[in-house]
Formats: sequence, C-alpha cells, structure tokens
Amino acid sequence: MDEFAFINSIMPSQAQQPSLIKGIGDDAAVYKTSGQADQVVCVDTLVEGVHFRRDTLSPYQIGVKGLASNISDLAAMGATPAFYLVSIAVPESWNEKELREIYQGMEELAAEYRMDLIGGDTVSTPAALVLTITVIGQVERTKAKYRHDARAGDLVFLTGYVGSSAAGLELLLKRGRTGSFSEKELALVKAHQEPSPHVEQAGLFAGFAGRVALNDISDGVASEAYEIAEASGVSIVIGADSLPFHPGMDEHSFQQRLDWALYGGEDYVLLGAAAPADVKELKERFSARQLSFFEVGHIEEGEPGVFLRHNGQLKKLEKQGYNHFQKRR
Amino acid sequence: MDEFAFINSIMPSQAQQPSLIKGIGDDAAVYKTSGQADQVVCVDTLVEGVHFRRDTLSPYQIGVKGLASNISDLAAMGATPAFYLVSIAVPESWNEKELREIYQGMEELAAEYRMDLIGGDTVSTPAALVLTITVIGQVERTKAKYRHDARAGDLVFLTGYVGSSAAGLELLLKRGRTGSFSEKELALVKAHQEPSPHVEQAGLFAGFAGRVALNDISDGVASEAYEIAEASGVSIVIGADSLPFHPGMDEHSFQQRLDWALYGGEDYVLLGAAAPADVKELKERFSARQLSFFEVGHIEEGEPGVFLRHNGQLKKLEKQGYNHFQKRR
Repeated sequence: MDEFAFINSIMPSQAQQPSLIKGIGDDAAVYKTSGQADQVVCVDTLVEGVHFRRDTLSPYQIGVKGLASNISDLAAMGATPAFYLVSIAVPESWNEKELREIYQGMEELAAEYRMDLIGGDTVSTPAALVLTITVIGQVERTKAKYRHDARAGDLVFLTGYVGSSAAGLELLLKRGRTGSFSEKELALVKAHQEPSPHVEQAGLFAGFAGRVALNDISDGVASEAYEIAEASGVSIVIGADSLPFHPGMDEHSFQQRLDWALYGGEDYVLLGAAAPADVKELKERFSARQLSFFEVGHIEEGEPGVFLRHNGQLKKLEKQGYNHFQKRR
Repeated sequence: MDEFAFINSIMPSQAQQPSLIKGIGDDAAVYKTSGQADQVVCVDTLVEGVHFRRDTLSPYQIGVKGLASNISDLAAMGATPAFYLVSIAVPESWNEKELREIYQGMEELAAEYRMDLIGGDTVSTPAALVLTITVIGQVERTKAKYRHDARAGDLVFLTGYVGSSAAGLELLLKRGRTGSFSEKELALVKAHQEPSPHVEQAGLFAGFAGRVALNDISDGVASEAYEIAEASGVSIVIGADSLPFHPGMDEHSFQQRLDWALYGGEDYVLLGAAAPADVKELKERFSARQLSFFEVGHIEEGEPGVFLRHNGQLKKLEKQGYNHFQKRR
C-alpha cells in the first residue's frame, strides 16, 4: 500500500490542515502538522447502559453521538477536528453488523469534517459495550479558547437551543426508538440521537481576536456554567427567560424546559462569555453566517457560582450534571 | 491556575519536545509542537479477564503494563513518547485505592520518559474494568520507521529477549502474584508484570539515516514477523537457534522456549530488518550504548510468509498471536 495514499489533498482554505502520513497497518499513526498550529486532543468513553441504551439509540446513532460529543470537546476549545481513533470493547451480545453500523455512524459524521480514522483497537469484554474515542484537532497557535477567560462585566451566550436532547430522551424512554413521533417531537429525538457539534461556530470563535471563555454543553447549562465560573473565579448570572428552547418543547411547562436545559445536557452547543462590545461583534459575525447566537446572562465579581434570575428572584443553582440512567458516571 | 504551569522545561537535548499549553481543567488538552517533528499517536485497550487478571498483576502493575504496551507502539515507529490520555471504565468491584494504584503505575513509568498525562475520562461499567490509553509521541520529520520497509537481502534483528513474558505468566498462573519465586523466576515474572518499552532503542533507529523496517513484540515473534512480511511483501526466515532467551528459561525445554518466543508476546522488544551493512552499523551503535542487539534471521524474496529454520529444516510458521486467557482478543 502506498504510504501516502492517506494524505489529505490540501485545499487553499485548509492550508493549516494536518496531513496523515501513515495511518493504517502499523500500530500507531504518524501525522505532520504545519507547525503554525497548536494540537488539541481529548478522549471520551461511552458505556452501554450508563451513557447510552440500545432501546433509545441505534448502533449507527451510537457512533454518530459518540464522535459528536468528542468533536464538541474540540469545538469548546475553538479547534478544528482532524483525526480520530476508536477503541471498542465488545461483549458477545453484539454482532458484526451492529459493530459495522457504529463505525458507519462515526464515518459519516467524520466525513462532514474531513476527519480521518487513524487508529484504534477492538477487544472483547464480558459485558456492556465500551466505546472510547480519541479526537485530535488543530487551532491556530495561541487562538485556543479556555474556560478560565471570563471576566466580570462579560455577557454570557449560547450558540443554540438547550434542553432539546433531554426532551428527546424522555420521548425515547417512553416510546422506544422505533416509536412514532410527530415532526416537532422528531426534532427533539434527533437532537438526542444525532447531535451536530458546533464546529463552524468554534471556527468563528478561534478566528476572533478578542478574549472569549468557552465551554460546550455536555452536562447541562448549570454544570458547564459552573466550570467557567470556577475556572475564571467569577459569578455567572443566567436569565431563565433568555434561555433558548426548541419550539418542539413549547407544550411542556416552563419549569420542565428549565430543568432539561440546566441539568439535561448532551446538547453540544457552545456556552461562552466575552466583553459586551465583543459579544456585539460576535453576534454580527454569527448572523452573517446565519448561525444562532443567544445572549443568556452576564458575569459578576464574586465567589465562583452560578445563579438563575427567574421572576425577579436570584437563585443559586446546584452544581449538578447529567445522571443518564444511573448514579455514577 | 496559570495556564503555562504545565509547559515542560526545554532541555538542550530535548529541543524537539512538544509543550503542553493547557492540560488540566478543560475537556481537551492543547499542545504545541516544534513543527520540525511528525506526530505519532496510538490507542490500546486492556480488559480485565481478557488482557489481564487480578491474580497475576497488581493494580500498580496493570498501570505500568498498560502504558508500557502503548509506549512500545510508539517505539516501534521510532518515536519518543510525549503525552498520554487515560480513559477508564470501572465496575463496582474496584475501590478508589486500587484505581489510584493503577494511575500511580502509569505515572511512574511516564515520569521516566517525561510524559505528561493530558486528559482522560472516568466512567462506570457494569462488569470488567476497561482501561484505554492513548499515547502521543514525536519523531523527527520523515524519520518514522514502518513495517513495510523490509527488502530481500536484509538481516532480521531483535533488541531483547523474547518469550520471557509468557514464561513469567506461566509462573504467575501457577503460583499467583503473591507466590514465592527464585531470583531467576522473578526476572521472568517482572518481565510479564512490569515490562520496559524500548524507547532508547527506538531513538537509535530514528536517528539512523538508513532504511529500517520496525515492529514491536506485542503478539509474539511469529505474528509480528508476519506483519513485517505482509507489509513489505517478503519472506522472513528466522533461525531458531538465534532467538535470544533469558537465562531464567534455561531449565525449560527448547521447544517450550521456542513456543513462548514465537507465540507468547508481550515482550515489548523491537523486531526489525535492515541491509547487512546497516545492521553492522546499528549493532555498533547499540553496543556503544550497552544495549542488546541480536541478529535472528534474514529476508528473502517470495510470497509474504515467516519461516523457522530449525535443525536444518525450514518450517512455515502459523500466523498466530497471543491468546491471553480466552479466544477472542
């Protein structure tokens, strides 16, 4: 096999894109970088029965969602995805066809971002499928975004709806993945099953010269806001009425929507903070690309904490994440 | 926390060493590279009961061995280890102290190579601990070594003893990890429990300008030689009498030692091929560093295959790897 067969063609707009030198065959993959970019890497593990259930996600969707959550971690740093590695521990209850579908789900999402699969491992395990995905991305040198960059006076924003995934999960837990759903419900169900990480949005943040604190919504707005508050040493105030909800949630009570948004998680949109003038500029850039951008709160001095302003009252939120189907994550 | 607290101090001998920019706190780690180096990445998963057993390895040793096998994959490419990420799925049968010991095993081995832990995930699983380690290394641009570079006329070499790990495992399966072992036996037991990946040797190969095909002994000499034979499209002939065995195996029959060497695996030494003049030069460089280097065979034209020359007979070897404790790996 030609060792250069896997090199990406370098497009003018992607001159920074790293190139795979040798990816298949040897135990490790070799890739080169432009030297102008910082590397970003993260790993996430999904366990059957803990992070996903076969009655709510198809094997294909397990692949999509697994990779999406990792790509979202890259997006939260402002990075562009480049490579991924997949390690899977498989019990006997899964067949070859289902495994192929998991990989197909990852492949199709990866293709959207021109990501190459450059390695992995397949092993057996006595019980519960364990899917571990490592993703590698790049961000222009010094342009990575972190949680610790929020300052008092900043505005807080979200790049998309929150609570949709939890609302979709509730529908799936009630009716199963082969159940029948209205069009509105289906949007929520799909938000849970096949989330779209905010990679284009991440690129806008990375390309923005101003200071931006950034995180992604894996574990609910409350938990992710706490991460920013603690990393930055600030208080975050979120306006309950400012949280953006998908129209499919209109029939649910406000309290229910709020709970899903704050504690549901897996929405994989971006939560961030920046100075008001910068937020104005970012809003225009997002608008020019027809991407959503919602102001949802502001940053104050004070002990690290997250507060919800609701009906004129300020209430400190619990630092609680998504519990999936059982207690320990 | 100061985001630059994790930057490695750059030593003169390690000017190529990548630097961690931000590693703890955010979901992903950011690191920068010199731009003169290619990146090498690989991932491996170990499953309790499949790849390790608690009666043969302590938690500390599970950590050491898990990371060692990954570092060995980097060594097989001629790469220097730089970073690692650890994802662990833990059943209720493991306690916090044991988990800390696993990480301690990894940390102590990582410290030898100045590797930084830059990310990971800890999740629960219903049964069987699953440990997935991702390692990232670097190799000077274009200096990575691959399996596909063997040519007819090359000599085949090993950088250390083979079969020791399998011999040690047999002792452990008989007497358990708290059993009593002679000094010679203990060397074999330790070879199984706390292997040393051949990182220094990898550096000698990476620094060598000549063509070298390289692989590491994870799955036994037969299986690893097949990987080189198939990737390079050549036949490999290994001399049974040339295989290097630890003196602790002297009391075992030659056939037993041969079986362990060919099909045992987990020795994590390097197997390679290079032109005779280059092997001579490599031998001298290894000798100058007081590192072992054994000529064990040669490369011929022909259908990809691995042959053992023993008692004047040439026998085609089975393409068989290490089966651990059950069939499917």
